[in-house]
Amino acid sequence: MIEIRPVLQIVGLFVAVLGITMLLPVLADLIDGSEAARADMRSFLASSLLCTLVGGGLAASAWGRIEALTTRQGFVITTASWLALVIAASVPLYLGEGGLSLTDAFFEAMSGLTTTGSTVVTGLDGRPPGFLLWRSLLQWIGGIGVIIMAIAILPFLSVGGMQLFRLESSDKSDKVLPGADDLAAAVFFLYLALTLLCFTFYWLFGMEAFDAMNHAMTTVATGGYSTKDASFGYFVTDEVARGPLDVVAITFMILGSLPFGLYILTLRGQGRALFQDSQARFFVGAAVLFTAIVAFRIVSSLGYDPVEGTRTAAFNIVSVMTGTGYATTNYNAWGPFAVGFFFCVMFVGGCAGSTSCGLKIFRLQVAFNALSVYIQKLSHPNRVTVARYNGRPLDESVFRSVLSFFFIYFAVFATVAVLLSLFDLDAVTALSSAGTAIANVGPGLGEIVGPAGNFSTLPTGAKWIMAMAMLLGRLELFTVLVLFVPSFWVR
Amino acid sequence: MIEIRPVLQIVGLFVAVLGITMLLPVLADLIDGSEAARADMRSFLASSLLCTLVGGGLAASAWGRIEALTTRQGFVITTASWLALVIAASVPLYLGEGGLSLTDAFFEAMSGLTTTGSTVVTGLDGRPPGFLLWRSLLQWIGGIGVIIMAIAILPFLSVGGMQLFRLESSDKSDKVLPGADDLAAAVFFLYLALTLLCFTFYWLFGMEAFDAMNHAMTTVATGGYSTKDASFGYFVTDEVARGPLDVVAITFMILGSLPFGLYILTLRGQGRALFQDSQARFFVGAAVLFTAIVAFRIVSSLGYDPVEGTRTAAFNIVSVMTGTGYATTNYNAWGPFAVGFFFCVMFVGGCAGSTSCGLKIFRLQVAFNALSVYIQKLSHPNRVTVARYNGRPLDESVFRSVLSFFFIYFAVFATVAVLLSLFDLDAVTALSSAGTAIANVGPGLGEIVGPAGNFSTLPTGAKWIMAMAMLLGRLELFTVLVLFVPSFWVR
Repeated sequence: MIEIRPVLQIVGLFVAVLGITMLLPVLADLIDGSEAARADMRSFLASSLLCTLVGGGLAASAWGRIEALTTRQGFVITTASWLALVIAASVPLYLGEGGLSLTDAFFEAMSGLTTTGSTVVTGLDGRPPGFLLWRSLLQWIGGIGVIIMAIAILPFLSVGGMQLFRLESSDKSDKVLPGADDLAAAVFFLYLALTLLCFTFYWLFGMEAFDAMNHAMTTVATGGYSTKDASFGYFVTDEVARGPLDVVAITFMILGSLPFGLYILTLRGQGRALFQDSQARFFVGAAVLFTAIVAFRIVSSLGYDPVEGTRTAAFNIVSVMTGTGYATTNYNAWGPFAVGFFFCVMFVGGCAGSTSCGLKIFRLQVAFNALSVYIQKLSHPNRVTVARYNGRPLDESVFRSVLSFFFIYFAVFATVAVLLSLFDLDAVTALSSAGTAIANVGPGLGEIVGPAGNFSTLPTGAKWIMAMAMLLGRLELFTVLVLFVPSFWVR
Repeated sequence: MIEIRPVLQIVGLFVAVLGITMLLPVLADLIDGSEAARADMRSFLASSLLCTLVGGGLAASAWGRIEALTTRQGFVITTASWLALVIAASVPLYLGEGGLSLTDAFFEAMSGLTTTGSTVVTGLDGRPPGFLLWRSLLQWIGGIGVIIMAIAILPFLSVGGMQLFRLESSDKSDKVLPGADDLAAAVFFLYLALTLLCFTFYWLFGMEAFDAMNHAMTTVATGGYSTKDASFGYFVTDEVARGPLDVVAITFMILGSLPFGLYILTLRGQGRALFQDSQARFFVGAAVLFTAIVAFRIVSSLGYDPVEGTRTAAFNIVSVMTGTGYATTNYNAWGPFAVGFFFCVMFVGGCAGSTSCGLKIFRLQVAFNALSVYIQKLSHPNRVTVARYNGRPLDESVFRSVLSFFFIYFAVFATVAVLLSLFDLDAVTALSSAGTAIANVGPGLGEIVGPAGNFSTLPTGAKWIMAMAMLLGRLELFTVLVLFVPSFWVR
């Protein structure tokens, strides 16, 4: 059996910290001071109290010294923490004046913390500031959580090829979290700095301070929640924008999708680490290529102006590819090719060790590598070929992890799509909802859940299925699935 | 470089034999004797002459002793033969009175020889018998071609995990075709016997002799071409059926999807080989499970009578799963769940070493096996786990082959779907056309290409893309793709 005490202690601590974070929306509502804001404030205050007490109580009751954790404890802590945080985060949404049902509150909190960005809330423009800030904060917290998880935890759990990213210095240890404190602190401050930088640009270029703050948080987290029903499209109209807000967003979505560990290396003086990284280069190359394809299509067949078309294509491609999910345009109206193309781009994702989601660039690279070795072996069975990635030789265990990941990814995707179609959703809605949830993107495709739509009208059962798919996708599937294998629980 | 002479000799021989086979439609038209049939006869006679001469001439000019072939020659011969046969088979369709364009003739011949069964021909009921017989013959020839390829060639090319099916006795040799003659002859006679048996049942239970002959050929080949626009649905109406024709079809579609090599073992006295084979058992189990799911759905929510509903569900599930593609019902009308479910079932396929298509049962089994080993390794990194399949240990090379196959399969599928959407096909049409072509099923989904529809209205470019996807799917992708890798052509 697994010793459960450290699990409870850590989960409790996380919940208590989230409870304290709820004081930020309280503050925002207090400053606003309107009638609605004051009602909203009370629900956040009550939730803060509840979560801090319950979480703190749990941690205190399980308090003790935590030795190095085992791999299996790592799996349990990761999944349990995310689930507990989502439940805690949904409390103020459920208690609030917003009128969110239990299902909607859970969906919205899950979509927030997993940085998915699918929303069931309508009428955003008139909501109290605390409510809006809370949604953005969830994504921001989720983003930093994902980065730290990808740098410090997943490599040691060997999930889906993540063993590639064990830091050189820690290769000798098989335990979770060796010296992760320093790295986590460095990454946290970098993340904060990027967010502040993004805020400054948004604000300078025409957003109001509150909107700039919220969007800065959800941009760097590649989350995609907005304070407006029209999403980012609201800010690129002539009345609002004093500058190229979309270019700022594109820049920071990309910065949020590059490996944060490499930023740290770069800052420590290994200046070219980032530029020599094959994952980062492949990611930027793919984004440019996809943008060019879509831009060519909409300029040539829909009569867009070349500059305008390229900007629009770049914004929407980067938004979908990084899993942010802002929309400026309803690209459903660009015809079947665009719909099919965006559907595929949805799965690509960003780099491992970033806030972005999806299959991830390194997995595509490893899979292409495996294929290339395999095809060479087919024609020359006796030749010895060694595959390398970022200078390191790739061994069989990485190949198998990554290829297994693809298999299970598409199996889960197909299962979720079929389950959603049980609720009589049409094919495009079911397929794209399944895809957007697993890849943590945000908007789906089609009339109902597309970039101009909203998930509020989906049946209750479909929302729960989607919420679970978001968790699976965010935790790289295996971190959750492994818990359902009976042999996990026996020594 | 690869010695090309044996390739030309074998391809030439195949084409010449196909030319001689064209005398069968000539005979059918001669017996019919109508005006249309006589015109049709002339085009088959001319095509027969042309193909026999060209093929024979090619073979004669390249004649020589064929030593054991190398792996690389095996790849070239396999792909070149299929392509040459498709081109030859399309000649009488193009020259005939039917008015098929070059594109349509190529599409129909490809769909026939790959046992896909997607058709661009309308007004089947009024076509001359030679034309109809030729379409069925193509599927029948394609079916036996696939079985022999899967038993005698693919295992030595190690394509997508097919090395699992090297016969015990031939494990020592690395050359293609060791002692394949005997096995090929045995399989051919068995295939012929199954077809005759199927014909007898169809005929006894109410089909006219000509229809029974055609449908027997396309049933055992799991091809799906019919002599009627209404497909198999024509024969399950009260006026025609004197007996359970659908049950006969279900039985022989399943018989065509089980491993033919095991029939031979069973006939040689190893009576339980077939029943102990995990692939055969898994296949039948999956067919029963899928039927039960669909039957439950249509009985509970569409008000079908339980017996009628089960028969209808069984027929359509087996038809799609085995890649036959007959339709008795427009299952599009069964709602989004059925559409999604049929879409997934499309990819499953039958057993390796049969006429059926798709991913194939053994690959699913190996993938599940790989996943199970992988998940156990995640929670217990130091435990040694050996995976077995049908009693043999599975080594890394099989895992990697099979998982690579899945990856490239879905990558090709996505690429084809996006390419098709360039022609402004809607999402369901593009996705299901791509899927039905790669998995060699036949009908797609949706209004246009669904079981009640037809591929005739698709744009020319889309038809060519689909035809190439059929070839890729039928030759297990890698057999074709490997030829496009430059290193294949250098020693």
